[in-house]
Amino acid sequence: MQAYDESNIFAKILRGEIPCTKVYEDDAVLAFMDIMPQVEGHVLVIAKAPSRTLLDTDPAVLAAVMPRVQTVGRAVVKALAADGLTLMQFSEAAGGQTVFHLHFHLMPRRDGVPLRPHEGPMADPKALERVAARIRAELT
Amino acid sequence: MQAYDESNIFAKILRGEIPCTKVYEDDAVLAFMDIMPQVEGHVLVIAKAPSRTLLDTDPAVLAAVMPRVQTVGRAVVKALAADGLTLMQFSEAAGGQTVFHLHFHLMPRRDGVPLRPHEGPMADPKALERVAARIRAELT
Repeated sequence: MQAYDESNIFAKILRGEIPCTKVYEDDAVLAFMDIMPQVEGHVLVIAKAPSRTLLDTDPAVLAAVMPRVQTVGRAVVKALAADGLTLMQFSEAAGGQTVFHLHFHLMPRRDGVPLRPHEGPMADPKALERVAARIRAELT
Repeated sequence: MQAYDESNIFAKILRGEIPCTKVYEDDAVLAFMDIMPQVEGHVLVIAKAPSRTLLDTDPAVLAAVMPRVQTVGRAVVKALAADGLTLMQFSEAAGGQTVFHLHFHLMPRRDGVPLRPHEGPMADPKALERVAARIRAELT
């Protein structure tokens, strides 16, 4: 496994060098809308502490991050009035990872609605912001 | 969301009423081979504390379970000499869940090898045990 590379896109978002459509932030995590959503309401939760994958993360970071993933997941389900939730986490390219900073995908699901492919089109920023506002409203 | 139903298959495994091919166990989790693996080395990590989905789990349970998921994940990657790892967690049927007791899928991945469908054939128990032995060896 390679070392953490701080030039990855999520590190740039954490440093404020690239914008994101934020839904939640605290000392341990940042959560924002996936710009290529596989479903409406697709959110990413990233750890603030730098690590590459699930495998190289400090266990104490994981223990702190996961309850936040749950909190954001509950808000996503409520905001989208979803029937369920799919959580995915990819480690290394073979595992499906494209940005090498630990992150969790949260995808609200409706009965009978499949996920779109991971490399879908870029979402309209205004549409993302409208969904983000609904999720933020569940988190306050 | 429905309440936890203690007649689910994983609750029966935890009570010893149904066998499993175990790879790891401690006070917080039990990990065993998926009997319908989507890839060789497909392991499930289940919480011992009863909950239905990610959404209704005690946050303290999640904080305890996730470092164990990491530990087992590292062993799976080493045992299978994998290039990566895919973690999935499904909440409610719409989210992909088929057994309603909190569990995490760990799937070791190789470059260019896709996952098989979730409803694949039952694995040969002897083949599962051989893989489980390799994973257990990485956990001792």
